[in-house]
Amino acid sequence: MSGEMDKPLISHHPADSDGNLAEALREAPKVGILGSGDFARSLATRLVGSGFGVVVGSRNPKRTAGLFPSAARVTFQEEAVSSPEVIFVAVFREHYPSLCGLREPLAGKVLVDVSNPTEQEHLRHRQSNAEYLASLFPTCTVVKAFNVISAWTLQAGPRDGNRQVPICSDQPEAKRAVSELAHAMGFMPVDMGSLVSAREVEAMSSRLLPGWKVPTLLALGLFVCFYTYNFIRDVLQPYVQEDKNKFYKLPVSVVNTTLPCVAYVLLSLVYLPGVLAAALQLRRGTKYRRFPDWLDHWLQHRKQIGLLSFFCAALHALYSFSLPLRRSHRYDLVNLAVKQVLANKSHLWVEEEVWRMELYLSSGVLALGTLSLLAVTSLPSIANSLNWREFSFVQSTLGFVALVLSTLHTLTYGWTRAFEESRYKFYLPPTFTLTLLVPCVVILAKALFFLPCISRRLSRIRRGWERDGAVRFTQPTDHALVEKTSHV
Amino acid sequence: MSGEMDKPLISHHPADSDGNLAEALREAPKVGILGSGDFARSLATRLVGSGFGVVVGSRNPKRTAGLFPSAARVTFQEEAVSSPEVIFVAVFREHYPSLCGLREPLAGKVLVDVSNPTEQEHLRHRQSNAEYLASLFPTCTVVKAFNVISAWTLQAGPRDGNRQVPICSDQPEAKRAVSELAHAMGFMPVDMGSLVSAREVEAMSSRLLPGWKVPTLLALGLFVCFYTYNFIRDVLQPYVQEDKNKFYKLPVSVVNTTLPCVAYVLLSLVYLPGVLAAALQLRRGTKYRRFPDWLDHWLQHRKQIGLLSFFCAALHALYSFSLPLRRSHRYDLVNLAVKQVLANKSHLWVEEEVWRMELYLSSGVLALGTLSLLAVTSLPSIANSLNWREFSFVQSTLGFVALVLSTLHTLTYGWTRAFEESRYKFYLPPTFTLTLLVPCVVILAKALFFLPCISRRLSRIRRGWERDGAVRFTQPTDHALVEKTSHV
Amino acid sequence: MSGEMDKPLISHHPADSDGNLAEALREAPKVGILGSGDFARSLATRLVGSGFGVVVGSRNPKRTAGLFPSAARVTFQEEAVSSPEVIFVAVFREHYPSLCGLREPLAGKVLVDVSNPTEQEHLRHRQSNAEYLASLFPTCTVVKAFNVISAWTLQAGPRDGNRQVPICSDQPEAKRAVSELAHAMGFMPVDMGSLVSAREVEAMSSRLLPGWKVPTLLALGLFVCFYTYNFIRDVLQPYVQEDKNKFYKLPVSVVNTTLPCVAYVLLSLVYLPGVLAAALQLRRGTKYRRFPDWLDHWLQHRKQIGLLSFFCAALHALYSFSLPLRRSHRYDLVNLAVKQVLANKSHLWVEEEVWRMELYLSSGVLALGTLSLLAVTSLPSIANSLNWREFSFVQSTLGFVALVLSTLHTLTYGWTRAFEESRYKFYLPPTFTLTLLVPCVVILAKALFFLPCISRRLSRIRRGWERDGAVRFTQPTDHALVEKTSHV
Repeated sequence: MSGEMDKPLISHHPADSDGNLAEALREAPKVGILGSGDFARSLATRLVGSGFGVVVGSRNPKRTAGLFPSAARVTFQEEAVSSPEVIFVAVFREHYPSLCGLREPLAGKVLVDVSNPTEQEHLRHRQSNAEYLASLFPTCTVVKAFNVISAWTLQAGPRDGNRQVPICSDQPEAKRAVSELAHAMGFMPVDMGSLVSAREVEAMSSRLLPGWKVPTLLALGLFVCFYTYNFIRDVLQPYVQEDKNKFYKLPVSVVNTTLPCVAYVLLSLVYLPGVLAAALQLRRGTKYRRFPDWLDHWLQHRKQIGLLSFFCAALHALYSFSLPLRRSHRYDLVNLAVKQVLANKSHLWVEEEVWRMELYLSSGVLALGTLSLLAVTSLPSIANSLNWREFSFVQSTLGFVALVLSTLHTLTYGWTRAFEESRYKFYLPPTFTLTLLVPCVVILAKALFFLPCISRRLSRIRRGWERDGAVRFTQPTDHALVEKTSHV
Repeated sequence: MSGEMDKPLISHHPADSDGNLAEALREAPKVGILGSGDFARSLATRLVGSGFGVVVGSRNPKRTAGLFPSAARVTFQEEAVSSPEVIFVAVFREHYPSLCGLREPLAGKVLVDVSNPTEQEHLRHRQSNAEYLASLFPTCTVVKAFNVISAWTLQAGPRDGNRQVPICSDQPEAKRAVSELAHAMGFMPVDMGSLVSAREVEAMSSRLLPGWKVPTLLALGLFVCFYTYNFIRDVLQPYVQEDKNKFYKLPVSVVNTTLPCVAYVLLSLVYLPGVLAAALQLRRGTKYRRFPDWLDHWLQHRKQIGLLSFFCAALHALYSFSLPLRRSHRYDLVNLAVKQVLANKSHLWVEEEVWRMELYLSSGVLALGTLSLLAVTSLPSIANSLNWREFSFVQSTLGFVALVLSTLHTLTYGWTRAFEESRYKFYLPPTFTLTLLVPCVVILAKALFFLPCISRRLSRIRRGWERDGAVRFTQPTDHALVEKTSHV
Repeated sequence: MSGEMDKPLISHHPADSDGNLAEALREAPKVGILGSGDFARSLATRLVGSGFGVVVGSRNPKRTAGLFPSAARVTFQEEAVSSPEVIFVAVFREHYPSLCGLREPLAGKVLVDVSNPTEQEHLRHRQSNAEYLASLFPTCTVVKAFNVISAWTLQAGPRDGNRQVPICSDQPEAKRAVSELAHAMGFMPVDMGSLVSAREVEAMSSRLLPGWKVPTLLALGLFVCFYTYNFIRDVLQPYVQEDKNKFYKLPVSVVNTTLPCVAYVLLSLVYLPGVLAAALQLRRGTKYRRFPDWLDHWLQHRKQIGLLSFFCAALHALYSFSLPLRRSHRYDLVNLAVKQVLANKSHLWVEEEVWRMELYLSSGVLALGTLSLLAVTSLPSIANSLNWREFSFVQSTLGFVALVLSTLHTLTYGWTRAFEESRYKFYLPPTFTLTLLVPCVVILAKALFFLPCISRRLSRIRRGWERDGAVRFTQPTDHALVEKTSHV
């Protein structure tokens, strides 16, 4: 009985409960490798280090042997593939056919395709490397894995860089085996489904921050628009109409009036899709209908938009704090003092201006502080330690607080300027009035959703209630993201 | 032999070593689901995506089938529960009795209770949902799991938000099975013990940052007290006694004299409990006695108190850097210059004031820099990559350096003000003198503990030595936290 | 069939598929513990909490029993070790021989050595504790594990502090068993190979940020050098040659001219080794040769050097923002205004100075912003979510952008000062000219490597091409780090 109960701990096969250790050692699970490039060598090093027996198949074992760790056995290809059940295929796609002579000894085994197509290859072939390999070896089970891992990561062990290994195969057991292998090597296997996903998995290693593309373009676009607008108002207008040279404002001053606009609009764009989604649910009277694709994508990119907003806000703070360091600031101050003396005015004080600026600064600092909490809770390791309620509390409640504080910051900046004719340069309204549009819509909508009648209806819809006659689609939808109620 | 040795890698049952793949595919471990709500559907999607066979039990399979992924089989409840060994119960508590007709086919199986009580339910019932389910199905093994996961996380896969799945059950094997299942779905199972913990597990999903509650209230309380004190000294006193309107100081200036006080006191409260614990051990002459509960709780909340201290210090820095941006600052400067001119003084320079301010700023920047290192090493992903000695070096040595630097910062701020009568407004001492109390006690105590006689005695106690006659309690205690020596 | 297919999920031994639950519970895998110190007690608590049956062996079970959790069975040593297959040895090295009486009942079992040598012990004995234990018990399998975990972490569960448990043993199955155990206890086992590594594993618990030692010393060294140089130029020269007392500059001003120099040189030292490595490969005409050791180490410490550079740059920003808060700044401003009035000059404006400062500030803020992105992507949890291409894009492309921006920042700071004789104090050139050396070499080299002829040759070498006659070494090399191409 004692032998049995310890099995899960000690071993999965009966041999070693009574067998001796030396035998058990020889029985270390064996893994085969075909190929002798950088990747094959790093793979062998890692596998040996993780306690696996490694057999490398080469056409010229003598020449190749020296390149591999001494614990790995390097032999002829036919011999190498005979004993292990799992064989890594670490050769280029164009050399796959050269392995066809091994079809017989490979029959029934698991082939792990670790290859990465170049971008041209990826575009040229409609079939993924792994599917191509599978078509060449119909009696084998092909598993796509490890292609996202670099030779360097394999050697150095997974520290920085990616630990996740996406794995796909048509055969769950083979997938499970390779997952356990990846796990034993210190990586984190991620199941990507059947071999049809191989193309997607192969595209992964060449993807470059896909989730950031649209948000970054959006932020850049907003920056260019607002920068141009501010340039016209702050530099061009004085130059054309008043013949004043203010071009020195380009590197700091105009950038610093542009950044908060971008940050503020981006922040409101984080909360707009949630409002639109709620409005759509209210109108449709059901939550069992997919949102349009653009709204779905928008909802999924809110994190990136929010982080870019924080980045712009932080840069705005840095720029603002460096304002008093400018020579122009020093000259302005000294000139003001001289002017005061010459005008024989002994005391300068405008109470309204003082209050405006104190409120403006205080709301700005608090908004940045709140945003930084949001940014910190977006870090994967922090987000993982929060439950759903906590994550949504921080991201939606604190985020809304940040939006309100930013609105206060903007309003105290503007003060009465929107109503002074002199502020309309070239008939263009002050920049801050433009940025207020979207955030105010979001804040008003959120306030509306708090009205008892609407809030009750919305929460009933989100708990599954449907208006009679609401058209119902059958796919599971992604809207659960905006859902905050108990989930059964 | 080769078949045997690969078992742990390839499979746990003999069938597929010789069987064909198609059969193996059909044999994918099956999991049952009872229920057809959001959560049931997301669960089915996730299970199918992780390579499990899914059978959904419904009262009206035809109507329900369209809602589930096509790979899941939707059938009548009796049929659905017959084959799988693990069945998810995704229905509301009030509908548990409606499943009693399935008692016979469910006998001997594992039921996974995924439900989350609403807050009212949690208060009303003394029995957890899982225990209630277990009482209805005495022949089944009930496992509580997945309740902290939202339908959205299940569908999107565990990225942001929580990956941890607390699991509890009275049957270790069933718990292990559900743990492996959770692991295969990409979650991180956390063993929470027997089913008695289900109530606690069910409370988890509605907990809202419990570790932060007391520290946040403490910080808010300190803020209110110090703000009021500073308001009386800086705004009220000039208004009452000198008839000066300084109310403009409320948003920035008073906040900025309050924040460092809060940050400084909080930082000293991080190190006070360690000092108290050491003093207690010295007095008792043993470490084998539990600390009083309040001290235990305090010791456990030091991280949160420290992070709040850093947050206040960072806000203080932001506020300070924005001081020269204020209108009031500009006006004061200009007025000072005008006054100088009118008084015919050509050179203004007070060497002592210059030195005080330079030292004050430098110690402040360094204190903030040190605190930021502490904050960064509190991030879970960084903390996980440090060993115990490194973590304790950063948190206790660097933390103490930060406390000393903050004390220097406070002392150079105060300078000689504590000894000037004019600084005692309404007979109230300057704020900084109040904040110095606790930190100085901590620093003095730490210095005392460095004296050879005390330090030797303390380290002997911590290595297990006991004074004769020291009363000894038998519970394992939490004092290991303050222990830094080799641990066997 | 259904019984078989569920095996991997439910259980590893046939008993419980038909056995009853109570029996299965009694069969919870048993683990033995020898020892009754802090660590033994915490270990027992954790094991019991993770669902294991625990038997503690003690010489005086009656006295000891009260110290352990009630679920653990405390008995005589002989009895305790009879049933479990895995036994933790939680006693000091000096007491290992006292266990020799248990040789017979321990034969064939797995002993887990959890001990940590003190630093003296580690230096005195050439044999690790684990190897010593193995030599005393030749019929047992010794596994080194859990020594890096503190008693506190065991009790509180792995949250902050390290979750990783390095494990080594000569017997893979025993290692696997202890790995599963560690995993079940919530830790992350890391395979460290055979028992020879035990000495290294035992050194781990006392290592103190080894990767940071050289980079920190480097940063401190640079700081001292530049501080001295700046002190001579900014404080000593005015004192000696012009009899001006500028010692007040020591705490802030001199520090703030030193920090950016350190940050800038460190940043260039992050990119220099990559340039050297590429130059070496070009000269050797092959990548199949190891780099010299110093270059290898340098390549491996780039992350730490980069983070220290960011830390210095951030401190520089904080110091700069606090410049206008200094009394000396206020006095200088007022004195300048007074001087202007007395000189009857009504308008002060130097366009060139204004432009210089605006460009200087803007490039500085942008450089810091870019560096902060680099720092954030160095966080383990972020780095883990990036693929190799993304990580290398951020670290090498964005890093190079930061270097170029810093160079702009330095050049706009210097402006024409390098060509003004008055700036050469004591014949010493301005500090910024010294710092420009290394960065300019790096930028020029990077530009050279972009020339088509060189770039083509370099990428061919990195894809494995070799010049005829290139001497080839056989060890796998670390150069993969600088390799950015597809990896098979």
